[in-house]
Amino acid sequence: MSAPTVSRVLNGRGDVAPATRERIESLIRAHGYRRRGGRSRERIGLLDLVFNDLDSPWAVEILRGVEDAAHTVGTGIVVSAIHRRAGSTRRWLENVRSRSSDGAILVTTDLDPALKAELRELHVPAVVVDPVGIPDLDTPTIGATNWAGGLSAIGHLTALGHRRIAFVAGRPELWCSRARLDGYRAGLETAGLAVDDDLVVPGEFDYESGFRAGEHLMGLADPPTAVFAASDQMALGVYEALRRGGLRVPADVSVIGFDDLPEAHWASPPLTTVRQPLADMGRLAVRTVHRIVRGEAIESPRVELATELVVRDSTAPPPGEG
Amino acid sequence: MSAPTVSRVLNGRGDVAPATRERIESLIRAHGYRRRGGRSRERIGLLDLVFNDLDSPWAVEILRGVEDAAHTVGTGIVVSAIHRRAGSTRRWLENVRSRSSDGAILVTTDLDPALKAELRELHVPAVVVDPVGIPDLDTPTIGATNWAGGLSAIGHLTALGHRRIAFVAGRPELWCSRARLDGYRAGLETAGLAVDDDLVVPGEFDYESGFRAGEHLMGLADPPTAVFAASDQMALGVYEALRRGGLRVPADVSVIGFDDLPEAHWASPPLTTVRQPLADMGRLAVRTVHRIVRGEAIESPRVELATELVVRDSTAPPPGEG
Repeated sequence: MSAPTVSRVLNGRGDVAPATRERIESLIRAHGYRRRGGRSRERIGLLDLVFNDLDSPWAVEILRGVEDAAHTVGTGIVVSAIHRRAGSTRRWLENVRSRSSDGAILVTTDLDPALKAELRELHVPAVVVDPVGIPDLDTPTIGATNWAGGLSAIGHLTALGHRRIAFVAGRPELWCSRARLDGYRAGLETAGLAVDDDLVVPGEFDYESGFRAGEHLMGLADPPTAVFAASDQMALGVYEALRRGGLRVPADVSVIGFDDLPEAHWASPPLTTVRQPLADMGRLAVRTVHRIVRGEAIESPRVELATELVVRDSTAPPPGEG
Repeated sequence: MSAPTVSRVLNGRGDVAPATRERIESLIRAHGYRRRGGRSRERIGLLDLVFNDLDSPWAVEILRGVEDAAHTVGTGIVVSAIHRRAGSTRRWLENVRSRSSDGAILVTTDLDPALKAELRELHVPAVVVDPVGIPDLDTPTIGATNWAGGLSAIGHLTALGHRRIAFVAGRPELWCSRARLDGYRAGLETAGLAVDDDLVVPGEFDYESGFRAGEHLMGLADPPTAVFAASDQMALGVYEALRRGGLRVPADVSVIGFDDLPEAHWASPPLTTVRQPLADMGRLAVRTVHRIVRGEAIESPRVELATELVVRDSTAPPPGEG
């Protein structure tokens, strides 16, 4: 077998004995993919970015950060949504296997343990970007400071003079919901206020549950003068409940959200909210995967980036004050 | 050179003469990537999806459709943002070259002609998803019926009894802006109304230009009772201008947008708008690339999917009527 023969096979030409072609092609099939990813441990060709659903409001913010950091070093980002379905996860893993992915960033609220085991078996290092706080330390995880975010929201409202402040909670099974609630309580205690359980209302992070919570709160005998919702989408649902009840934001009721999605800026009035640095979390995830691939140590299995209060036009002193 | 020799080179073992290794490796480097894409004309491993910017409000909607269609057939989607910068485009093309992408879907308002030429040279078939309407027929393009969308918005408002209807236009250099404006004019003429040039205000598709247009319109001696904005983001800017002016939507002024982004549903009040089927446009783009790769004919170089009026709570009869 000569080099020109190999060349003829690779070029797909017909003047090669079938057995020779078969032998060379099976060799290349057996080794070609592995070589691509393994060519150099410094070079990362493709990273996988996996969402449960692309209609998550965070999705595009995290994607922006991941794309930005990957683009700078010439890495391609393969985006998938696995829809919490076993069939979809299976198909994605087959795709990852055939491509020999260099690493995976998982953005997910309910991470399938089997998925992580399979990635380990495929030698694909994984990092979790986690805006909702799953305490799972065997995979490096990047989150945000949920408790401190709750505290800063309540500090802003009590400084404006509010005393009756409601909280619309997130999905109760998620740790971030608990951390934001505890930040709310700590904020009230810091201001010398008691927690009134009537003002803590369940929610599911989505617009509809925020709307229902807003209607419930405004129907109370002693309604709140301010509402802190554990997500921007719920805060927008509260807006709509207030509007239908003939109440104005912030003249009658102040509202604060959590996340700082683009919608917060476009709301009418623009929404005061606690910013999660979602794009920065995506950027850090890329750098963390790169460090693992290069065999470098990472600082901590869980990193939380700081949240930040963004004051816009939905908060003001309570009616009759200010 | 024997098959075991090729095998030893591919396995990266040391017991091969350097000259032989060099010859085989350069052959594989020269041809290996090409073969991956060409292995079978039926199988597509990776498709590129390219945005100008991921902060475009359409981005995630189109991505959802593209991911959905690609996922079903086991194709991975590589997402990039080229930021209208030559350096970024260059880096992306290098990445595409090294991966031998099977096809590209370009979502872009200002498509660089050099980009398409380079893709052609790399034998990467391209399809443009184009929510703004660039009439460029040498690449297959998937858009939406902008003119008919404008017509349906005005038909809805005139049926409610509006006679003074303003239009906030999009970026004037884009064809979709012209088509939506012509749909607005045709809608007025259909209802027997004259076009008042004072009620046609320039915009840039973004929230800020919508806000400025709203302030301008409400300052007119004879202000409109309804505003049709050529994008949802501009409609939300109009909302905020009305709110600051002490006017209510829809009791004082009706507002219609264009796009039906998720924000339209979350606006307060929920926004009546003209829906572009962005996810469907993404799905069709994947199917179109697949057809080109398989050597099948495509129906038309430009396909426009139907827009649809979605009536929510931001439109009502003008004050004093209904």
